Amino acid sequence: MFNKTAYALGSNRSCIRELFEYGRQRAAIVGPENVYDYSLGNPSIPAPAAVDDTIRSVLGDTDTLLVHGYTSSIGDLATRQAIADDLNDRFDAGVKPENLFIGTGAAPELVATMKALTVENSEILAIAPYFPEYKPFAEVAGLKFKVVAPDVPDFQIRLSAVEELLTENTVAIIVNSPNNPSGVVYTRETLTALADLLTRKSAEYGHPIYIIADEPYRELTYGGVTAPFIPLIYPDTIVCYSYSKSLSLPGERIGYVYVPEQATDSAELYFAIAGAARSCGHVCAPSLWQKVIARCAKLRPDLAAYDRNRRALYESLTAMGYEMAKPDGAFYLFIKAPGGDANAFCEKAKQKDLLLVPGDGFGCPGYFRICYCVSYDMISRSLPVFKELINA
Amino acid sequence: MFNKTAYALGSNRSCIRELFEYGRQRAAIVGPENVYDYSLGNPSIPAPAAVDDTIRSVLGDTDTLLVHGYTSSIGDLATRQAIADDLNDRFDAGVKPENLFIGTGAAPELVATMKALTVENSEILAIAPYFPEYKPFAEVAGLKFKVVAPDVPDFQIRLSAVEELLTENTVAIIVNSPNNPSGVVYTRETLTALADLLTRKSAEYGHPIYIIADEPYRELTYGGVTAPFIPLIYPDTIVCYSYSKSLSLPGERIGYVYVPEQATDSAELYFAIAGAARSCGHVCAPSLWQKVIARCAKLRPDLAAYDRNRRALYESLTAMGYEMAKPDGAFYLFIKAPGGDANAFCEKAKQKDLLLVPGDGFGCPGYFRICYCVSYDMISRSLPVFKELINA
Repeated sequence: MFNKTAYALGSNRSCIRELFEYGRQRAAIVGPENVYDYSLGNPSIPAPAAVDDTIRSVLGDTDTLLVHGYTSSIGDLATRQAIADDLNDRFDAGVKPENLFIGTGAAPELVATMKALTVENSEILAIAPYFPEYKPFAEVAGLKFKVVAPDVPDFQIRLSAVEELLTENTVAIIVNSPNNPSGVVYTRETLTALADLLTRKSAEYGHPIYIIADEPYRELTYGGVTAPFIPLIYPDTIVCYSYSKSLSLPGERIGYVYVPEQATDSAELYFAIAGAARSCGHVCAPSLWQKVIARCAKLRPDLAAYDRNRRALYESLTAMGYEMAKPDGAFYLFIKAPGGDANAFCEKAKQKDLLLVPGDGFGCPGYFRICYCVSYDMISRSLPVFKELINA
Repeated sequence: MFNKTAYALGSNRSCIRELFEYGRQRAAIVGPENVYDYSLGNPSIPAPAAVDDTIRSVLGDTDTLLVHGYTSSIGDLATRQAIADDLNDRFDAGVKPENLFIGTGAAPELVATMKALTVENSEILAIAPYFPEYKPFAEVAGLKFKVVAPDVPDFQIRLSAVEELLTENTVAIIVNSPNNPSGVVYTRETLTALADLLTRKSAEYGHPIYIIADEPYRELTYGGVTAPFIPLIYPDTIVCYSYSKSLSLPGERIGYVYVPEQATDSAELYFAIAGAARSCGHVCAPSLWQKVIARCAKLRPDLAAYDRNRRALYESLTAMGYEMAKPDGAFYLFIKAPGGDANAFCEKAKQKDLLLVPGDGFGCPGYFRICYCVSYDMISRSLPVFKELINA
């Protein structure tokens, strides 16, 4: 007498978590310096010092009942204003506080947005490779989950594959850029072409097809590349943002949903997202963290360490003969498995204590993912193993 | 093209919130000292100073990547161990860390627990008067929501009314003690009799009927009364706890679910709750707060201010002729409306800027709720208005 779907979700650990646990066990046996764990996307750059300083300031200068008390369920006005100001400064986006819902990170924000868009027979598209949790989120919301085939080898978006899957029941497509797992940033050209297609098909079907922009990595781009702000390209875009990666606060659960005023049914959608969050038990985002973000919305991370890792791996691995799309963002490389069988390759790597995640779970067999939010030393020590594997 | 149920949940503000907003508007017109707002259950006792001190200590002595990083989705082991130790010290309850799931407050914990218990045609019982959010939580989970008639005038539990509603589809009954809105603490006799009934009916139906113990007020009792620890009376009890009231941290969203090892299908239920939380976007409870609770699990609130308010109101109002059950817990009084029509009475009170919540939303017409987490001064100033109203 318990819910079997929930049980399956709770008892099946992800293969990524399994691999991470395996790495810890191996580290205890062979020494941590001999395990090369590229499995988990846990930021290795600490939160900017200003974050902890701001916590201390808030505790020192704000009435404690306010600091820890309930906020409005949509979030403190000061927090929403600070985020709106920052988005407007950078993108001239016309964001108002009433378009922002302060949420508890991208995962629950995506769930609420998907639930808000679910009507009878609704379908949602994800673009391979994609973050595996999209599928259970969509299915629990009641959406049919469809996967757009990957645009190999650049991992932009194959429009023909999108168009094939669109039907009159399609309510949304999830766009995750910079992308987990590919590390690719969708170009303005790609996004403009997608917007044109969606505009045309929305008109044909007589209802909007929304883009759900899953943007925890928006600020993590390198080498002068930036991620375009999608609502300015396609107004029917709902942004789900998280400070998990940009401020290295993944455990603290703070972010926002932005529903542009120019989106179709903007106000109704905003309320539907708030209501869907409420039905999941959302009361408010952690209050102290709302106060911190109100003062830190303009903070940006120092990405030098990630960029150094990225360049070291990209240059060394391509020189060895590994093939991958150009990794302009996030902290991932998505690499073609030598020999073609990523599971076999990752298994061989695992025998040498090099932990890589096969692409199958991301809807993209034949590739494997590397998270380079690790120490530079580990990268240096791991390179001979990569070389040995490709030469084998 | 948006979900109408979610929209309704997001756009319909609760009458309590409406009343609270009205109070703020009136305060701006007639002065805050002339508005007597008893609408909202927002703690008025600050968090113990040790809480903010602990935040500063954690920031000072713990690796920042650990402080703000992802924890396991079930919560840090140190946090679960500290909570288990505290429960065992007080109740000798045999709690192990692996029986605890660190959640983000009672609301999402209740949602996850209800979802975990939902199979086809499942039904859940709440006991009037009850917290209004139970209904949308249950319905969104897919449960049929049934209300046990109130045990007037003591607001214990009418077992005959429970038995009438039990069917072979009943999977759980929600027990909220100390109770919102009645302020009543269910006695050991009441709970033992309920346990006997549920044990008998569980045997008859061939499956457990769980108690979901919604316990944000467990530590808020007065005058030597304590709330019995229900899992020791009825093993098939799932506890949803929150630090919102006991440590005055309602905005911070931290609590736990306890699934006793001796509960039927304990391990499966635990995983189903974790999976249901995951399907709502749960990643982990706020990491900094987990670290704080690991060090503060034994902290208790100083309830002197609430108790003073409680006694002042109870004594004055009963002396005036108002009738209510003895308020031994939480921070609520639930009072019989003079004249019998609580809506009419609350409307008359509102004309005098005395803000009371009618009992209809709690499944109990003819009564109104007072939250006494307010200033003692406001209580003193409001008493003449109460007197005027009952004399009219």
